[in-house]
This record gives sequence, C-alpha cells and structure tokens, in this order.
Amino acid sequence: MRIDAITKQGEKAYALLQEDAEKIRQLIEVQLENLTMPQCPLYEEVLDTRMFGLSREIDFAIRLGLVEEEKAKNILHELERKLALLHEGSVKK
Amino acid sequence: MRIDAITKQGEKAYALLQEDAEKIRQLIEVQLENLTMPQCPLYEEVLDTRMFGLSREIDFAIRLGLVEEEKAKNILHELERKLALLHEGSVKK
Repeated sequence: MRIDAITKQGEKAYALLQEDAEKIRQLIEVQLENLTMPQCPLYEEVLDTRMFGLSREIDFAIRLGLVEEEKAKNILHELERKLALLHEGSVKK
Repeated sequence: MRIDAITKQGEKAYALLQEDAEKIRQLIEVQLENLTMPQCPLYEEVLDTRMFGLSREIDFAIRLGLVEEEKAKNILHELERKLALLHEGSVKK
C-alpha cells in the first residue's frame, strides 16, 4: 500500500516534469523554425532560466526519491540536445 | 496507510525545502554581518539565482500536493524579508 502511494506520487512527479519540459521544448521548436528571423537576444536568457528551473525541480524530485535519477536527468539531456541544435543553427546562419 | 505515506513524503519535502532555505539564509547572514565591507557585485546575482531555484522547488512541491501552499511559500517570504534588510543596509551604507 505504502509503496503504491509513493509510486503514484512518483508518476505524478514525472508527469509534472514532462509537462514543464514540454513547454521548454516548444520554445526551442519555435526558435528552430524561425532560424532565418533575427534572433531575439532575450530568447537565450529565457531558455537558460527555464532550463535552470527545470533542473532544480528534477534534482528535488530525485532527492525526494520520487523519480529515478537517470530517467529524470534524461528529460534535461534531451532538451540540451535540442538546444545544441538551436545553437548550431544560429552559428551557421 | 496511503495518506500516511504521502504525509511522510510531505515531511521530507518540507525538510528539504527548509534545508535549501537555510543555505540561502546563511549566505544572507554573512553578507548582513559584512555590510561595512565592499559589496561583491556577484553576491546579489548568486542570491537571486538561489532564490529562484528555491521558488521552483517550492512550486513543484505544491503542485505535487506534498506541502501546504501557504506554509511552503512562507519559507520564501521569510528569506525575502531578510533580503530586504540586506538591501536596506546596503543603501544606508
């Protein structure tokens, strides 16, 4: 029973993290689609702040024992890969 | 049984938040004690970042239903009051 309740909390934690990651993902996608447009300098700042916020949430969930470290950190790594694409694109432009 | 497990998680969440707040509190205290010293410009930046990180953790814990909104937000408000003292002190200096 106890383990079941914690698992449910873990699932909820994971869903919330995915939800927040999705918002960042969308921000990155929009920027990837608009690489030919003049880049807003605040864009990078906003993305950095959002990524930092998400990393705090992920660490917190890991410390609480609600999510598996590797699985949770992967959410961040996937976003970092997308961000790298964005930076690459900006340099090539 | 189920509620009991969630309560335990809530206590753990609250303890972790207090722990993180304590680190920020110490940073502020050190700076309050050294108001006569030349202020390091990075200090404010570091405190801002830490406060933002803590606010993300607090929101996450609230969204998970692990902590009471008012009680958790009070952790942040107490730190903000301390920070205000610090700013006041810097202005008077």
